[in-house]
Amino acid sequence: MFREKIKVLDCTIRDGGLMNNHDFELPFVRAVYKALSEAGVDYMEMGYRNSKKLFSPKEFGKWKFCEDEDIKEVIDGIESNTKISIMVDVDRLDVKDVKPKKESPVSMIRVAAYVKDIDKAIFLVNNFADKGYETTVNIMAISRALDNELNEALEQLEKESKANVIYIVDSFGALYQETTEFLIKKAKNIIKSKEIGFHGHNNQQLAFSNTIESIIHDANFVDGTVYGIGRAAGNCPLELILGFLKNPKFNIRPVLDLISKELIPLRDQIEWGYLIPYAITGMLDEHPRTAMALRKSVKKENYREFYEELIDHAVE
Amino acid sequence: MFREKIKVLDCTIRDGGLMNNHDFELPFVRAVYKALSEAGVDYMEMGYRNSKKLFSPKEFGKWKFCEDEDIKEVIDGIESNTKISIMVDVDRLDVKDVKPKKESPVSMIRVAAYVKDIDKAIFLVNNFADKGYETTVNIMAISRALDNELNEALEQLEKESKANVIYIVDSFGALYQETTEFLIKKAKNIIKSKEIGFHGHNNQQLAFSNTIESIIHDANFVDGTVYGIGRAAGNCPLELILGFLKNPKFNIRPVLDLISKELIPLRDQIEWGYLIPYAITGMLDEHPRTAMALRKSVKKENYREFYEELIDHAVE
Repeated sequence: MFREKIKVLDCTIRDGGLMNNHDFELPFVRAVYKALSEAGVDYMEMGYRNSKKLFSPKEFGKWKFCEDEDIKEVIDGIESNTKISIMVDVDRLDVKDVKPKKESPVSMIRVAAYVKDIDKAIFLVNNFADKGYETTVNIMAISRALDNELNEALEQLEKESKANVIYIVDSFGALYQETTEFLIKKAKNIIKSKEIGFHGHNNQQLAFSNTIESIIHDANFVDGTVYGIGRAAGNCPLELILGFLKNPKFNIRPVLDLISKELIPLRDQIEWGYLIPYAITGMLDEHPRTAMALRKSVKKENYREFYEELIDHAVE
Repeated sequence: MFREKIKVLDCTIRDGGLMNNHDFELPFVRAVYKALSEAGVDYMEMGYRNSKKLFSPKEFGKWKFCEDEDIKEVIDGIESNTKISIMVDVDRLDVKDVKPKKESPVSMIRVAAYVKDIDKAIFLVNNFADKGYETTVNIMAISRALDNELNEALEQLEKESKANVIYIVDSFGALYQETTEFLIKKAKNIIKSKEIGFHGHNNQQLAFSNTIESIIHDANFVDGTVYGIGRAAGNCPLELILGFLKNPKFNIRPVLDLISKELIPLRDQIEWGYLIPYAITGMLDEHPRTAMALRKSVKKENYREFYEELIDHAVE
């Protein structure tokens, strides 16, 4: 698949940081930036810009805050065309912490929001756009969005927001390709002035195929992480995206090297990837937090009991 | 997805056996059979029926030969509606080793063949059909088949063979969903009197999504293995198929138990699953044998060098 407009965004440090309190060492982050730059990846997302009034720097690593000065240390001296992205959660940021683009190493700010928070997301994204940044709104937990509310959110985003890209985010790894197709087509029908993006999670080993499905239906922004690192089951492996896309600007070799040298040792310290408790939360369209807690308990391999507990809530 | 005609075949012991010389202990094979029976899985494939004149029982476990007496030991005393399948490779079997169905615990015999061996496959499958077995022909290495030759093979299978099912087999884990769709539609167009099946490999984490894709386009036989065990990157995880299919006859719980108790310990002894060398052979549409050799060498994590070696063959 070669469509020149397709942009690849790596969120290794940002989504991977959800598994280690955003506490990656500088040499690791620089190694990722260097490899992505050599590989021709379009964007690298460093982490979240959270307010230090809400989260303590004693408890979290610096990629929970992604200050401009810390980002400058990462990119210093490395030749690159890879743009820097940061993510912002609704209600966790002081907008005054975002300077005008011309004073910052950041190129893109992505606002993550549930459908119910779309008005807050539009406020933030327009603020960042006015400051000169490229912007996206990432609609989280899309598998739980009610159809009429999602339609309204997409219509608002089209009319009221200055975002360049609207992302469909399969937070729970619950989508099969038929629903991915349905959602991307829906978004393309409503969003005419912006690009569509897709961010998958790999609970059911479908992050890569759903990413391909979104590309087939004309999404032009896709997310991946090196060796699939990310919260719980992780994300779409970047190396598979680079193997699939035929744009000659991409070069998989530096990413293969990075996996050998950095990700294989890291996987011994941080657990992510295809594990049955994450597959179960994906099948049941649940947040993986219960599965993440299980993996830290002595019952980590008691899959059947975990499954029974999840489905054994009387619902009326 | 609930389509009553869809049949699920588990080949845990058969494809998993490719990683341990088919040397599974009887209690393990019985545990798999018991779990699959409770889960409502339609078929369980025990292994290959190979001639003992060609392979020595000293070098291989009993599931390389799958004699009727050994199969009877597995199923003895376990209540089950799960039918037994065995696989046969062209040119590795003495047809006299296959007794009439009424004297055997086996219900189905699957003949694995490359396109070039389709005449031999038809001879075998008709012999087995005449003996009373359900039969399939599994067209291997489909990603390497030339279109005109594949068309001819499918036309022959439709006209000359008594097989009940024709399988599309992605031996190298090289198919993306667009090509899976193309191949399943092609097969459905030519094969009118038989069912179509799909068997995937998971090199690029696409075995499950390609299985779904084949179901969408009306394949009614799909293969999986428990926790994805199988040669190299392994197969489509059975637990994901059971999570996807909505037929109330299926019950995922016994399979979750089996993974906890048997597959998690086994994974410490036998390596399978998503590993970068297998992803590379999948991307390049190559047999995984080079990657399997790499994983047994001291260079097992030298991914970039492995990639360079594979693409560095001058071809004219």
